[in-house]
Amino acid sequence: MLTTHEKPREDTAALMADIGRRARAAARPLAIASAERKHASLIGMADAVLRGEDTILAANAIDLRNGEEARLGASFMDRLKLTPARIRDMADGIRAIAELRDPVGEVIAEWDRPNGLHIERVRTPLGVVGVIYESRPNVTADAGALCLKAGNPVILRGGSDSSNSSAAIHACLVEGLKAAKLPADAIQLVPTTDRAAVGEMLKGLSGNLDVIIPRGGRSLVERVQNEARVPVFAHLEGICHLYIDASAKLDMAIAIAVNAKMRRTGICGAAETLLIDRAAASTHLLPVLKALRKAGCEIHADTDVLAAFADATPATETDWFTEYLDAIIAVKLVDGVSGAIEHIETYSSHHTEAIVAEDAATVERFFNEIDSAILLHNASTQFADGGEFGMGAEIGIATGKMHARGPVGVEQLTSFKYRVRGSGQVRA
Amino acid sequence: MLTTHEKPREDTAALMADIGRRARAAARPLAIASAERKHASLIGMADAVLRGEDTILAANAIDLRNGEEARLGASFMDRLKLTPARIRDMADGIRAIAELRDPVGEVIAEWDRPNGLHIERVRTPLGVVGVIYESRPNVTADAGALCLKAGNPVILRGGSDSSNSSAAIHACLVEGLKAAKLPADAIQLVPTTDRAAVGEMLKGLSGNLDVIIPRGGRSLVERVQNEARVPVFAHLEGICHLYIDASAKLDMAIAIAVNAKMRRTGICGAAETLLIDRAAASTHLLPVLKALRKAGCEIHADTDVLAAFADATPATETDWFTEYLDAIIAVKLVDGVSGAIEHIETYSSHHTEAIVAEDAATVERFFNEIDSAILLHNASTQFADGGEFGMGAEIGIATGKMHARGPVGVEQLTSFKYRVRGSGQVRA
Repeated sequence: MLTTHEKPREDTAALMADIGRRARAAARPLAIASAERKHASLIGMADAVLRGEDTILAANAIDLRNGEEARLGASFMDRLKLTPARIRDMADGIRAIAELRDPVGEVIAEWDRPNGLHIERVRTPLGVVGVIYESRPNVTADAGALCLKAGNPVILRGGSDSSNSSAAIHACLVEGLKAAKLPADAIQLVPTTDRAAVGEMLKGLSGNLDVIIPRGGRSLVERVQNEARVPVFAHLEGICHLYIDASAKLDMAIAIAVNAKMRRTGICGAAETLLIDRAAASTHLLPVLKALRKAGCEIHADTDVLAAFADATPATETDWFTEYLDAIIAVKLVDGVSGAIEHIETYSSHHTEAIVAEDAATVERFFNEIDSAILLHNASTQFADGGEFGMGAEIGIATGKMHARGPVGVEQLTSFKYRVRGSGQVRA
Repeated sequence: MLTTHEKPREDTAALMADIGRRARAAARPLAIASAERKHASLIGMADAVLRGEDTILAANAIDLRNGEEARLGASFMDRLKLTPARIRDMADGIRAIAELRDPVGEVIAEWDRPNGLHIERVRTPLGVVGVIYESRPNVTADAGALCLKAGNPVILRGGSDSSNSSAAIHACLVEGLKAAKLPADAIQLVPTTDRAAVGEMLKGLSGNLDVIIPRGGRSLVERVQNEARVPVFAHLEGICHLYIDASAKLDMAIAIAVNAKMRRTGICGAAETLLIDRAAASTHLLPVLKALRKAGCEIHADTDVLAAFADATPATETDWFTEYLDAIIAVKLVDGVSGAIEHIETYSSHHTEAIVAEDAATVERFFNEIDSAILLHNASTQFADGGEFGMGAEIGIATGKMHARGPVGVEQLTSFKYRVRGSGQVRA
C-alpha cells in the first residue's frame, strides 16, 4: 500500500514542522483576503472537482483495490467509495459554502461610550485548524472549504485508506486557491500515512496549530481529546435523551420518539435513552413502546417498565451510559421533570436532549437546569445538526464549553477583535 | 511564616483533588441559582467585607510583618498593604459587580427556521475557573465576585505573602454565599502556600478545572501558559504600538502619544513603541518627541530618528521586543501605514495598537490588517481596559483567540447553549 505520497517515517517530524510553518505563513494573506477572492477560490475548487472527476475516480479505484486486499468491512468500503454522483455532491457542497455570508469583518456588537469612543467587536479568522479524520474522502473537500471561508489555514490529515482519493481531491482545492491567487498552503494535506504525523499535530506543531477537530469514531476522538496539547472541538459521544412528560400530547410523543430513535440510528443526534414521566405510565408508556417496537426498535427497560411491557430486555447500569448507534433504546420511568433532569445530568454526554410536554413551567425547568449543548422542546433530537440550524455546512458538533459549542460551522471557526474609533480621546 | 492554614506538602495533591471535586459539585446549584440570589450573595459579601475590616486589617498586619522580615521590596509591600480606604474600595468593587446585568440565561441570538423551529442561543456559566495570582489581596474579592456573577465556581490561589489577608477576605465572601444559601464551595481559597498546589491546578484537577486565569507578572503568566493542560485566559505582555500617520493632526498626535506612554507606564496598555510615518518626519517627529522628553520619557531611537533628534539612545533589535513598563519608548520611522503594519505584525504581542490619522482609507487598512485584540483610532492605548469598554469589572486582558479575547469580564466568563422550541417537528 505504499503510494507515491508516502514518506519514510524518520522524516515525519521535520515534514510536519514544515507544514506547520507554511500554514502559519498563509494565515495573514488569508486573513486579509477579500470576501470576493475567497468566494472565487471556492467556486474554482468546485469547478476543479467536477473537471477532475476521472482523476479522482482513478485515485479512488486504487484505494478501493487496497481496501479489498486489506479486507475492510462493507460499511467502511461504502464510505470510501466515490461515484460521479458523490463527486457532484462534493462540488455542490463546496459551492454552498462559497455562497455563505463571509464572516470575517462582520460586526458582532457595537456600542458607544460616554466619552465618545465607538467600540465594535468584529469577527476575525481563528487561526490554523487541524482536521484529523477517517477514511471519508469527502471530508477533505468539506473541511478544506469551510476553513477557507472562515479565513483559516487548514492542515488535513485523512485516513490512510483513502489517501489516494484525498490527494486527488486536495489537488482540486489547491487549483482553486491558485486560480484566485490565494496561497496554496492555505489548504494542506499531510502527504504521509505515517501515524506519527497525528502525534505531531496533537503536540501542536510548535505553536503553529491553534485548534484540532477530529472527525471519526470514538477511539479517534478519545485519543485526540486525551493527548492534544491544543484546544479540541469535538464530541466524544452523543448519549441523547428524550423525556416524555405527563403533559405531552400522545400522538406528538409517539411521532417524536420514533423519529428521534429510528430516522437514522447511526448519527450522534439519535436518541439513546427514553425517559417517561411516571405519571404518564398508564397513558403514554405502552403506545410509545409499541410504536418503537413496530418500527423495529429493541427495548432495554428498567424494572418498572418491564413490569408493564414484557417485550423488552432488562436494562443494566451500563445501558444508561451507552451510545448504541443502533435500533436499541434504553427506557426508564422517572419522577416527572425533576427525575428526568437528575437522570440526564448523571448520564448525559451533554450533546442533545429533548422534552415533549405541554406544560410551560416544566419546559422552562428542563431548558434552564440541563447543561447540554442543544435542548429541544416538542421536536426530534435528530435536528441536532448545523444544516438544520440554518448555519450551512458544519464540521461537527462540539460538547465542550470553550469557544464553540453545538454545531461547529463557519462562525464557530472565527475569533474577534475590537475596533475603537475616537476623536482624540486620552485617558484621565 | 508558617500560619494556621498551612498544610504539610504531602497532603497537597489530595487536598487539591478534594477542592476540585467540591468546585465541580458546586457548579450545578450555582448554574441554576436565580439572578436575585446571586445578587444578594454579592451584596452580603460586600457587607461582610465592611463589617470584617478589623479582622482583615489584623490578618494583613501579619502579612506585612512577615513581608518586612522577608525584606520584600517597597512596591511589593505597597500592593500588599490594606487600609480602611482600600477595604472600602474592595466592598464597592463587589457591589459594582452585583449591579451588573446577570449574564446567565441572556438570549444572545435567536432565529426561526422554515419548518417553524425557533432557535435561541443563551448564555450559560463556563465551568470551574482557577485564578492564580500574586500578593494583591484585593484580587481575592474581585475574582471571587466576578466568577460568582457568571455562575462559575472559582478556585483562588493567591500569593503566599498575602495568605493571611486573602484568607480573611475569603471568609467574608463565604459569609455572603452562606447568607444567600449558595454553596460555600462556590468560592474556595487554596489553604496552603505549598507551590505544588499550583502544579496540581495546571494539571487540571482531574478534569474538575475548566480554565485558568493567571494574574501577575511575566514569570507567573509564562509558567501557566507553558504548563497548563487546560485553557488559559491571559496575556504574556503588552507590547503596544502607537502609529502616527502623516495625515494625523499634530496636536492630537502629541496628546495621544504622551497619554499612551506616560499616563501610567506600568500597565499592559501603555505604549511601548512609537512608529512615525516617514512622510511626517519633518512635521510631526520633533514636536512629538519633545513633548515626550518634556514629560520625562526616555527615547530609544532608530538611526533615522537619531539623525533628527539627538536627545535619545540608539535602539537595538531588542527594543522592538521590549515591554518597558517604564518611562521609556522605542521610536522608529516607517514607510506609511504599510510599514507600520509590517513592524507591528512582526513585533507585537497582539494586545493593543493605536493609529492617529485623518485619512479614512489608512485607518481601515490598520484596522483590517492588524491581528491584535484591540485596535484604536485617534485614541490612547491606555483605554485597553474592561471598565473603559463599559464591561464593568475585568479579571484581565486576553491575547489568545480562543473563547475570550481582549478584556475578560463577566460575559467572557460564560459559554452558551441552544434552546430549540418546536410544535411536534420530526426530521424528514
